[in-house]
Amino acid sequence: MRWVWHKNNKSPFRIIIAGFLLVILLGSLLLMLPAATRAGVSTSFMDALFTATSAVCVTGLVIHDTAAYWSFFGQLIIIILIQIGGLGVVTVACAFMIPSGRKIDLMQRSIVQEAIAAPNVGGIVRLTGFILRTSLLIEMLGAMLLFSVFSGEFGFARGAWYAVFHSISAFCNAGFDLMGIKQPFSSLTDYADNPLVSVTIACLIVVGGIGFLTWNDIRTNRWRFSKYRMQSKVILTVTGGLIVLPALYFFFFEFSEAPIQERILLSFFQAVTPRTAGFNTADLTVMSQSGQLIIIILMLIGGSPGSTAGGMKTTTVGVLFANMISTFRHKEDAQVFHRRIAGETVSQAATILGMYLILFLAGGLVISRLEGVEVLGCLFETASAIGTVGLSLGLTPQLHDVSHLILIALMFFGRVGGLTLIFATLFKPQNMRSSARLPLERITVG
Amino acid sequence: MRWVWHKNNKSPFRIIIAGFLLVILLGSLLLMLPAATRAGVSTSFMDALFTATSAVCVTGLVIHDTAAYWSFFGQLIIIILIQIGGLGVVTVACAFMIPSGRKIDLMQRSIVQEAIAAPNVGGIVRLTGFILRTSLLIEMLGAMLLFSVFSGEFGFARGAWYAVFHSISAFCNAGFDLMGIKQPFSSLTDYADNPLVSVTIACLIVVGGIGFLTWNDIRTNRWRFSKYRMQSKVILTVTGGLIVLPALYFFFFEFSEAPIQERILLSFFQAVTPRTAGFNTADLTVMSQSGQLIIIILMLIGGSPGSTAGGMKTTTVGVLFANMISTFRHKEDAQVFHRRIAGETVSQAATILGMYLILFLAGGLVISRLEGVEVLGCLFETASAIGTVGLSLGLTPQLHDVSHLILIALMFFGRVGGLTLIFATLFKPQNMRSSARLPLERITVG
Ligand SMILES: [K+]
Ligand SMILES: [K+]
Repeated sequence: MRWVWHKNNKSPFRIIIAGFLLVILLGSLLLMLPAATRAGVSTSFMDALFTATSAVCVTGLVIHDTAAYWSFFGQLIIIILIQIGGLGVVTVACAFMIPSGRKIDLMQRSIVQEAIAAPNVGGIVRLTGFILRTSLLIEMLGAMLLFSVFSGEFGFARGAWYAVFHSISAFCNAGFDLMGIKQPFSSLTDYADNPLVSVTIACLIVVGGIGFLTWNDIRTNRWRFSKYRMQSKVILTVTGGLIVLPALYFFFFEFSEAPIQERILLSFFQAVTPRTAGFNTADLTVMSQSGQLIIIILMLIGGSPGSTAGGMKTTTVGVLFANMISTFRHKEDAQVFHRRIAGETVSQAATILGMYLILFLAGGLVISRLEGVEVLGCLFETASAIGTVGLSLGLTPQLHDVSHLILIALMFFGRVGGLTLIFATLFKPQNMRSSARLPLERITVG
Repeated sequence: MRWVWHKNNKSPFRIIIAGFLLVILLGSLLLMLPAATRAGVSTSFMDALFTATSAVCVTGLVIHDTAAYWSFFGQLIIIILIQIGGLGVVTVACAFMIPSGRKIDLMQRSIVQEAIAAPNVGGIVRLTGFILRTSLLIEMLGAMLLFSVFSGEFGFARGAWYAVFHSISAFCNAGFDLMGIKQPFSSLTDYADNPLVSVTIACLIVVGGIGFLTWNDIRTNRWRFSKYRMQSKVILTVTGGLIVLPALYFFFFEFSEAPIQERILLSFFQAVTPRTAGFNTADLTVMSQSGQLIIIILMLIGGSPGSTAGGMKTTTVGVLFANMISTFRHKEDAQVFHRRIAGETVSQAATILGMYLILFLAGGLVISRLEGVEVLGCLFETASAIGTVGLSLGLTPQLHDVSHLILIALMFFGRVGGLTLIFATLFKPQNMRSSARLPLERITVG
């Protein structure tokens, strides 16, 4: 296959993808340096590639425990990759461009627009500035709150480093943690009954996951919900529902042995985290299969568009649900919050659902067959990868290279956004919207 | 809730549903008679209702083994319910109507049209005659082939009864069997290496499952595939793919210990049966989890519209796949075999996929919670119910009444067709297609 890179091929999609790939490759090379590991050994390319992909795609699946294996230098590279991946490669590039005084042309603006899912090209530069300022502010606030706990536990210097690392990792929905120093792969299980850590991390996750444009809406319209853009309303409603309902399930059926405060914290945290965050305060391997299945479903759904999160997206679920209601009511168009949804959007949402189901199931089946492990555990890891979540039942470190490559592909797909990837690679833009229409023929479904 | 039954409420949908319910209730009462059981005892209403629903909805899930529990009279009721359910309550009603010389008005015609998924009202009576004649012919042919084996094994009279019963059950995709006489719930496992039984049953299943209109197309156009209606092309292509691909998987990964002829037969039969037939020649409980997952997916997909089969339907899968391709190619409309698919059809297909996923998952989770069994087994039974398949990992007979009610509801939903059910019960027809359009607003998905 020839990779043609004409000037007129620079669609925003391709540039986003090239940016992600470049950052991943650079990160992999840096992580291969002996200085990046505690033991001072060189990491294999595959393991470095997996770690860099997991960081840039803000997934959090790891082969080596982050605290036990990587040196401070390695951890620094990882958190920088997370910050770049979380805020979007292009947003960062744009931020570097503004102070340099170079003119930002329409092509560059439309790249940024695609990356942050903005509704139109105007005001992109102002919006990017707002995103970067707000992100840093929130991360600093989170770090300060975490520092009040971590400084007592780890001392000043390490406490500060841990506070910054986990605040960025939580806000970017990355799910990397440094708690392996206590017990490898333990994530935040030690803080299950600590409200300050649990609630701070959960809030960072939610704020990072609802999308930059939703912030803008909240900043502009404050408490006047009815003034919000339809997309913000859908995001907030679906996000709320997907936190409250699973939290109730976990409260009543999974954590009934814990004391009441810990039980509430556990239920809330485990409801927030599967939608692309990837920290856990409960041991997921001892959960019931039903609980694991609910987590798989939440992982596939993921966060909101134009945010630090991955997955199928809350809006996709909202659109499919609205479409369901409109079909039941014999309405021609799907509608939500008194707005009509374009038929094209419904088609795209159906495509995304189909792609996620196919890739998640196919990946799980192939890994199960390759590794000779039971399929439910494999499906947990593939859902975690494609939703860029990073929760794990412990299988990932034991897998072979081919399975790791499958997970790398799924993480990339989940973060870049399936449609972006396909638009950029498979079909030429000149194919868009051919106006010749074929004759219509009825077909019965269902 | 008030059940209003005005004259102007007689939508075809409601009449189809009322017909199914009436036949199920009548069947339940007959099965409660002591004469219906071998032991001469009266069966509880719940068990009789479950059996009658399973028969009319051509599912094949059973609480009591058909051969061991029910008398000849009971088995006769069951096979009559299967024949009525398989050919469609309304088709049968129509068949009784024709000889009685009564005028068939447009409303009656449109009921039949809905029931067999015909593209237009004209020619319905002729088509119904064709369906009934062909069905009986194929069932007789199947019975004769099976008789050549069963007469040797069970003697003339019982051999004939077994041949007729299994031919009807296979053609109607019902999956009820009388082999429990050898070992309860053994289905056709005794005939795994018998090509005559395996292939005859598999062919009856496929012919019954591709839909009456597809037959009509094949009869009219013979080998000129390009002349077929688009729907027939989609049905034949998807059906072919969904037999060949799983058969290859089963051949290479599941039945590798069997001798070559049995291995081919096992793979072919187990690939055909999950798409709503429900017989099995292999012991499904010893299959790998991956194999069971593939069977769950095939069960959810089901057969083709306007046939004896249930499930999401092959056309739904075809439409969603065509929509996926068109999204990838930035085309406005989904297209398949050089025909455009209406946007409304894509919306309906997405709704059907969503409903099946929600009901299958919710049903499995609730049953798992109620019964305290692991969720994968429960999902197998709910997929089997909603796809009206009847395959089982053995859980169904052990469940409590509430779980049985859930399965009854899923079987009914799967057979009647989800949209038919919702159109008939939830919303009034006057709501159809309100022409007032809300303002369009963009929303980002995926
Ligand atoms: K993550
Ligand atoms: K069946």
